[in-house]
Amino acid sequence: MDKKRIAGEKAAEFVEDGMIVGLGTGSTAYWAVRRIGERVRDGLRVQGVPTSERTRELALELGIPVVSLDDFPQLDLTIDGADEIDDNFHLIKGGGGALFREKVVALASRRLVIVADDGKWVGKLGAFRLPVEVVPFGWRRTVRAVEATGCRAELRIEGTNPYETDNGNWILDCDFGTIADPAGLHHSLKRITGVVETGLFVGMADTVVLGTEAGVRILSRPTPITDAESC
Amino acid sequence: MDKKRIAGEKAAEFVEDGMIVGLGTGSTAYWAVRRIGERVRDGLRVQGVPTSERTRELALELGIPVVSLDDFPQLDLTIDGADEIDDNFHLIKGGGGALFREKVVALASRRLVIVADDGKWVGKLGAFRLPVEVVPFGWRRTVRAVEATGCRAELRIEGTNPYETDNGNWILDCDFGTIADPAGLHHSLKRITGVVETGLFVGMADTVVLGTEAGVRILSRPTPITDAESC
Repeated sequence: MDKKRIAGEKAAEFVEDGMIVGLGTGSTAYWAVRRIGERVRDGLRVQGVPTSERTRELALELGIPVVSLDDFPQLDLTIDGADEIDDNFHLIKGGGGALFREKVVALASRRLVIVADDGKWVGKLGAFRLPVEVVPFGWRRTVRAVEATGCRAELRIEGTNPYETDNGNWILDCDFGTIADPAGLHHSLKRITGVVETGLFVGMADTVVLGTEAGVRILSRPTPITDAESC
Repeated sequence: MDKKRIAGEKAAEFVEDGMIVGLGTGSTAYWAVRRIGERVRDGLRVQGVPTSERTRELALELGIPVVSLDDFPQLDLTIDGADEIDDNFHLIKGGGGALFREKVVALASRRLVIVADDGKWVGKLGAFRLPVEVVPFGWRRTVRAVEATGCRAELRIEGTNPYETDNGNWILDCDFGTIADPAGLHHSLKRITGVVETGLFVGMADTVVLGTEAGVRILSRPTPITDAESC
């Protein structure tokens, strides 16, 4: 049983005719996008907002009409993966480096559906190092300010150069150990000059579709939080 | 009496032998940098960290040795201008578009000396529109989130395209009217996904050197705030 595949394909069932859908990136979201493509071939009418160049290419290949966030500021639904999901549906994302675009698309969506295999479902966040996107200018000062919040931060390298995001920024991978207060940590980091965004998605996921050995589990968050930026 | 010139030249006297000095940008900081150049010609040994490409060229032309923030993370002193200065020494900066680099250099400095003519000295901030640096991707959503904090925001245009900062970002010029709580507003804006930095410099200036018709006034902030990012 391919846990990623069954989760992704199940989540594609949430898509309804006429929706504007955020299309996630990664090995589980891939299966959701593929299944949406099959449904489009069968007559489903949707428009997709990709969260990365890779997903844009996949969507076009599958015949899913692609539109931009600036043309359609309000999406109905986004389906995306995560690196970790905790009991409160808070997430760590950004292992693939696209955390900024993924967060903006998710914030623009009425509903965020997270797809993952059950290995990503953790009690508390923090075994996965938190990606933090930073401006290159003055990055050494930014590293010190980030580390002062209680972590070891390492500049992500690709080949011999810093990994560069779609925004021309760099990524710090930050080892905090167990993260007791995701919202507090996110805000402490975000207020640092030089930090553009963090991979903590707090109070944003509405539904988690989890692939397990025994099949798919669909989990819903009991109390929706309406304004993730002010929580 | 050139109020900008007398303020800038006076501030240059704060520079001492052996210092690493942040060199500001703009029509008043220009006179400080020029005077520092004269003092270097007379034997003063300093190294300068410029806050813009324009200031870098000026410094090199004047014979001031130029170093980078990544090599010298701790500066002794920065001399820079401002668009507005209030009674508590809070500032609006960024009319020239270099607010990010100016803020990083100022944060790295033990002491920030602001030079200005007395027209910039205001009771409350806000007559000058607040510059806010934003990531281009999803900027329309960011504008809505920024305006929800209580302003009219306008994308800064240069020719027919958005003005682009040194970081490859865009600037929103935001009319809030009178800003009652600069620290609160800065943090509300900074926590928005898509906002990289604001032109509010809260609790950062230590000394203001003001050019007036009657000569130079030197003002010192009574209680220094040591950690501007957490205030």
